[in-house]
This record gives sequence, C-alpha cells and structure tokens, in this order.
Amino acid sequence: MDLRAEIITIGNELISGVQIDTNGSFLAERLQSRGIPVQRLVSVGDDASSVAQALRESMKRTEVILVTGGLGPTSDDITTEAAARFLGRTLQLYQEALKHIKNLMCSLGVEMTDAQKKQAYIPEGAELIPNPIGSAYGYLIKEANRLLFFLPGVPREMEAMVEGTIFPRLEKERKGRLHYRARTLMVFGITESRADELLKDLPPQHEDVQISFLPHFPEIEIRITVHSSSSQEADEKLLYWEKETGKRLDPYIFGVDGKTMEEVVGKLLREANATIAVAESCTGGLIGHRLTNVPGSSDYVDQIVVTYSNKAKVDLLNVPEDIITAHGAVSEPTAQFMAQGVKNLAGTTIGLSTTGIAGPGGGSPDKPVGTVFISLTDGNETWTKSYHFSGDRLQIKQLTSQVALNRVRKYLLQKI
Amino acid sequence: MDLRAEIITIGNELISGVQIDTNGSFLAERLQSRGIPVQRLVSVGDDASSVAQALRESMKRTEVILVTGGLGPTSDDITTEAAARFLGRTLQLYQEALKHIKNLMCSLGVEMTDAQKKQAYIPEGAELIPNPIGSAYGYLIKEANRLLFFLPGVPREMEAMVEGTIFPRLEKERKGRLHYRARTLMVFGITESRADELLKDLPPQHEDVQISFLPHFPEIEIRITVHSSSSQEADEKLLYWEKETGKRLDPYIFGVDGKTMEEVVGKLLREANATIAVAESCTGGLIGHRLTNVPGSSDYVDQIVVTYSNKAKVDLLNVPEDIITAHGAVSEPTAQFMAQGVKNLAGTTIGLSTTGIAGPGGGSPDKPVGTVFISLTDGNETWTKSYHFSGDRLQIKQLTSQVALNRVRKYLLQKI
Repeated sequence: MDLRAEIITIGNELISGVQIDTNGSFLAERLQSRGIPVQRLVSVGDDASSVAQALRESMKRTEVILVTGGLGPTSDDITTEAAARFLGRTLQLYQEALKHIKNLMCSLGVEMTDAQKKQAYIPEGAELIPNPIGSAYGYLIKEANRLLFFLPGVPREMEAMVEGTIFPRLEKERKGRLHYRARTLMVFGITESRADELLKDLPPQHEDVQISFLPHFPEIEIRITVHSSSSQEADEKLLYWEKETGKRLDPYIFGVDGKTMEEVVGKLLREANATIAVAESCTGGLIGHRLTNVPGSSDYVDQIVVTYSNKAKVDLLNVPEDIITAHGAVSEPTAQFMAQGVKNLAGTTIGLSTTGIAGPGGGSPDKPVGTVFISLTDGNETWTKSYHFSGDRLQIKQLTSQVALNRVRKYLLQKI
Repeated sequence: MDLRAEIITIGNELISGVQIDTNGSFLAERLQSRGIPVQRLVSVGDDASSVAQALRESMKRTEVILVTGGLGPTSDDITTEAAARFLGRTLQLYQEALKHIKNLMCSLGVEMTDAQKKQAYIPEGAELIPNPIGSAYGYLIKEANRLLFFLPGVPREMEAMVEGTIFPRLEKERKGRLHYRARTLMVFGITESRADELLKDLPPQHEDVQISFLPHFPEIEIRITVHSSSSQEADEKLLYWEKETGKRLDPYIFGVDGKTMEEVVGKLLREANATIAVAESCTGGLIGHRLTNVPGSSDYVDQIVVTYSNKAKVDLLNVPEDIITAHGAVSEPTAQFMAQGVKNLAGTTIGLSTTGIAGPGGGSPDKPVGTVFISLTDGNETWTKSYHFSGDRLQIKQLTSQVALNRVRKYLLQKI
C-alpha cells in the first residue's frame, strides 16, 4: 500500500501564535524522508468540534494521520475525548498505561492524581504507543483503512515515540518490510543553489532515494535517505549515494549526522593532543561560547580573550601600538599579532584571532562593514586571511566564528 | 461585524518539513491581539488543487482568510493562478504593480524579466497591497462576504504589509474604527505559572483588553493589547493596564517592547559613563557575545576573558593559587578574585565574573551540575552569590549569562 500522510497539531497556544509549531515540520521531514509524502499540516485549538472536523477532513484525503497535542492531564486537554466521540468509541481504562503513570509518579516521589489517571483512558480497540519519557501514552487507531496516530505535544516525547514505535509500525503496513538508512552531510562554505548545481550530474534518483536540503544558517544539511527491501542492499545504497554526493561536495563537508563545527574541531584537537587559545575582537566571545558548548571542552580550551579595546590588544596581547596606529585595529598585521599574542599568553598549541567590522556602524570606503581578518598560528607559521562578509551584525559574527573554526579544522586535518 | 480568521501558508518547503512555518504563528499572534480569533492554521504544498481545497474549506468557516506564499516569479509559485481559477476570475495586468517591479529592478541596476512580470498579473477586481520591500505585491479579494488576503511568503515583506495595510483594512470592515495600542513587558526571574498567579487579582479584562504570555527561554514576554473607539481612551487604557500589570510584576520587568537584557544593560552603562570587563568561566564567552551583539558596545565593553583553565585564572587574573586549591575553581572566593582581577586588568568601572559547572560532567555531591557563582565588583564593594540552576549545558550557560547581566542592570539602577 502506498501511503500519504497529514499532520494535525492541536493546542490553543498554536492558533493564538504563542508557540510556533515545530512538531508539524519535524514529523513532515521524517515522513517525507521515509518515502511518505505529507499533503497538509493543520493546527487547531483545544476544541472538540475543531478536532473532529480536522480528523474528518484528513481521513477523506489520506491513509496516515498523525495527531499531536492535547493528551495531557489538564481540563483543556480534550484530544482523546474528542477523537473517541468522533469515532464512536468508548474510553477504556488501559492497565498498562495506568501502571506506567503510577511508576513514573512513584519514581518522582509523588502520588498519582485523578487528573493524571485520566491519561490512561484511551479509546477502545487502540494499540498503545509507549512513551519512554513522559506520562502520556500515545495510541494508534485503525479505522476505515486509515491509521490514526495520537501523540503527546511535548517535542522530546513525541520525537522519541516516532523513532521507537511509529516508523516500525508504519513499515508493517506497507508492501513487505522496507529497510531505511539515512545520513546527513553537514556542509559549510557554499550556497544552497551552488550545492544544487554541483549535484546536478548525480545519477538519476528513483523513489528509493531522497536527497533533501535543510539550510540552517550558516550551514546546509544535506539529508540522504534510501530504502530497500533488503537490509544489506539498503546499506550498500546509502554507501553509494553518500560517496557520490560526498565526492561532489567534498571540500565543503565538515561532518555528518548533526555534528556541529565546534564538536568536530573539539574532537580533532583532542586527537591531536592540542590546546587552543583565542583572541576575539569582532566575534565578541562567540567562538569561546561555541567551543565551550561542547562537554569536556575544558580539556583543550585554555583561554579566550575578547580584546574589544585597542588598549586591551596592546596590554594583554602585546600587539605593538604602532602597528595599530599604522594599519588600524582591523587589519592583517593586527590579526597576526593577536593570534601570536594569545598563543604566547596561554602557552597553547594553537592561537586563533578575529578582528573585523560587524556593523552597522564603523565601516569606511576602505574597510566596509563585513571586512574581517582571521589569523591562525602554531608558533612556526602564521596564516592570516581577509574576508568580506555580508549580513547583519549577528550574521557577520556567526560567519566569522564559523570560518575561524573551519580554519582550525582544516589546519588540524593537514597536520594529523 | 465580528471577524474570525484562518491562515493558509503555501509552500512545498513547509509540508516537506524543510522549513518551519513562522508566518502562521506571527499572523495568528497579531490577529489574536487585535481581537480577531484565529481558528485554524493550514499548510499545503505548491499545488493548485490543494490551494483551492484549502480556500474552499476556510471560506466555509471564517470571514477573514490570510494566505501567504507562492506569489514569487518562479514556475512553482502557483498561488495567484490557483486562486484566480478557483474564484472564477481572470488575471489582469495591474499597471501599478508592474511599475513597482520595474522601479525595483531599475534601482538594483537590472532588467525586469518576463518571470518577474508575471507578478503583476493579479485576479480582476482585487485591491492591491503595496510591498514596501520586495517585488511581489499582495492583494485583497472580497468574495461572498469573505476577505481573502494574499501575501508573499518572505517573512520581512509579509510582516511589513500586515502592519502597513492589512490591519487598517480590517478595521474598515469592522463596526467603526478601533484604535489599538500594544506594549510588551520583558520579564525575567519568574516562571510562567508564577507570573500567572501574580496577575490573578488583576481587574477583570473585557474583550477590549488582551494579556498574553509568550515564553522565550529564559525570558517571558507579556503582551498587553487594548483597543477602543477613541484614540485617547486607547492611550489611557494601555497606560492603566501597563501600570496594573507592571506593579504586580515589578521586580521581574527589565525592559519593554522586545528590548534584550544586553541592550538594557548597555544603555545603562552608557548613561552611567561606565565601562565593563568580564571574566567568564562556565559561560565560556556567552556574556561577551551577548554584550557585543549590541551595536556600539565597543564604547563600554573593554575586554572579556574566558579563563577556562586554572592556570589562566592565576596568570591572567591573579587569583591566588592557594584559593583555588583550598576552595576549588568553582567557589565563592574564586569568583570574587576573578571579578576583582579582571577589573584591575582592564581598568574598568565594573568587573563581572562567572564560574560554575555547566555539565553534563564535572558535578559532585557537594557541587552538583548547575552550581554557579557570580561576582560583581565596582572596586569599593564586591558582591558574590551562589546559584543552583537546572537544565542542560546550554541552558545553564544561558541562565548564568542572563542572571549575571541582570545583576549588572540592578547594580546600575541603584547607583544612578
């Protein structure tokens, strides 16, 4: 059976604009990459007749309907009751769900309330979907050849349930069992349209292969999903498409499967037994913030200095005052002295520096907003480059930090 | 006429999950705060029959329908054609829209292409909605007592058109003209449910007043919207409700109307003619990054040092080695010496420091993950406090940076 899907997200916070619906697009991306096209996303409020109407419409159009939200214990969580009434099913107390709630409350050292007990009442004939994190079980109802999945609205819980139960369950409904494999290539240094161009000469992809672009400034994630009826063939297909895509985008791929640039750099620093110190000017601490977002980064990050003032550049990093006077704080020689200065100060393997004009003020015809110098030194050699970034202040900071970290990555890859 | 609305967002990128729909929730929040409840958000792909079906359904239910997306020049932008066919209207060349496109291209120094000219063909009988930013005009179609607004999907363009044209246009349709006023209180240091509790004894709000909560970790925005048939009364109402809300939440309000904590702190530093230097440990550069996100911050930010290693704390900040040995790097005395050390190093008015355990590793029974010390000194006095935050690594960094900046804000408010 060929499956198509619609997604219904329920909650007053969605239709009042208090919260952006992220569940809908998460589910859409996952379904799409499994070869199940999504036709429509709908958000309605916590209101029985709106829920019933949305279910009725979606059941007319598609085989698979995913519903999130409104399974909680409070009085405005009405999804289960509304669905039961619409489908003409009574609510039953499911012992497994009840036990789950009791156990969870017990482990938190509190008593189960009556309101929480409500979550164990589920429409008769439903298949339970365990919730590994929270109290609300999900469930699947088969009705008139339709599969209706009901899931809690808390993203973490919903996501765990999708991977753990829903996809395996969907596979069972399809022609035989299909094996899925996915890889995400993390790409930086190229626009989406240029990446698209580089991939133009890929062999034709049939419906068993999907390659999609997910831009996350300043990076692009390229997601490859393949399926096959044989597990081994699925592995081989993924390998083939990863290789074909990879060789076309090679210089721009810095990692796979959601790894961040700072995680990649951190891993390389650790492997090389190297340490790093950074002198930031225009990035203002962003490189330090990113490097230290990685657990355990204290092993290789020694210190970061943000020398915003010229005085700090001179006093702390020993940038010669006449260099700043002659060339300016935003200049190649200043960047170079900053990288060398911070390396000497900290006694690390690598010194890295940024200086530039993030805007919106401070630009000149000579050095417009977006002019940035990045320098990297290992004590033997120092490499300094100039860049011209565009964007607003935050984007210029983000681009500068990304390029600087990427320079460290490239340096370490050549060295090791 | 009492108005209700539905929002239809159009684009393959939405139903494939490549892009999260932010237009829907933006429009929902704005409409809601203008007293126009939104019943449903729907996303469909760039496909004529899906667009027609969504329009048909929404027209059955509501008076106002806002449609975004699919007005661009490329072949997959099919919204206008689909709408014209569905409504039985022909497309007409609108000279005003054509001139707008020509002028825009001219100012960019390029020729108008045929594809761009397509954007000036709009269903007959439509009212044009000027686009102050991009090439695609929007338009309003009145059909069977329904108002159908069509807008481009680019958020910046759509948002400008909503405030500039759509709300004034909606007012015209209602019983007389209403005057709207809105204020957003920026709140930190309190949970949403506690804020709710503190506002419990507010006088009853009638439909001319709306108070809504928009949580943005770690802050809450509290949005007050009022309307009245008289401009003066609208001003008075806003003043009244801002005062009533404000006095209940007073210690937690740090700004209004979208101001960030770092903007507020920056403004206070500037007014006090003060400068700041920061010694960060667990926040890893995040405080520096935030302070320097504000244009012109180089006037009061002197330097930030991220002393991740003990050696850096000793060498750079003169934290006595025996203090670290006796009390640990994460301790009250270390925090205090760090704040004093960075103030002396930089010669600024204020020294600020953070040291803590952001996790997931590094915790102990004595000092679990989330233990943080923040110290502030002005040279005469030094205030050091301990905190116990919960959350993941990034959340602990965010909370620490927020509390530290808030401490600076409070210090400056007492002083000035």
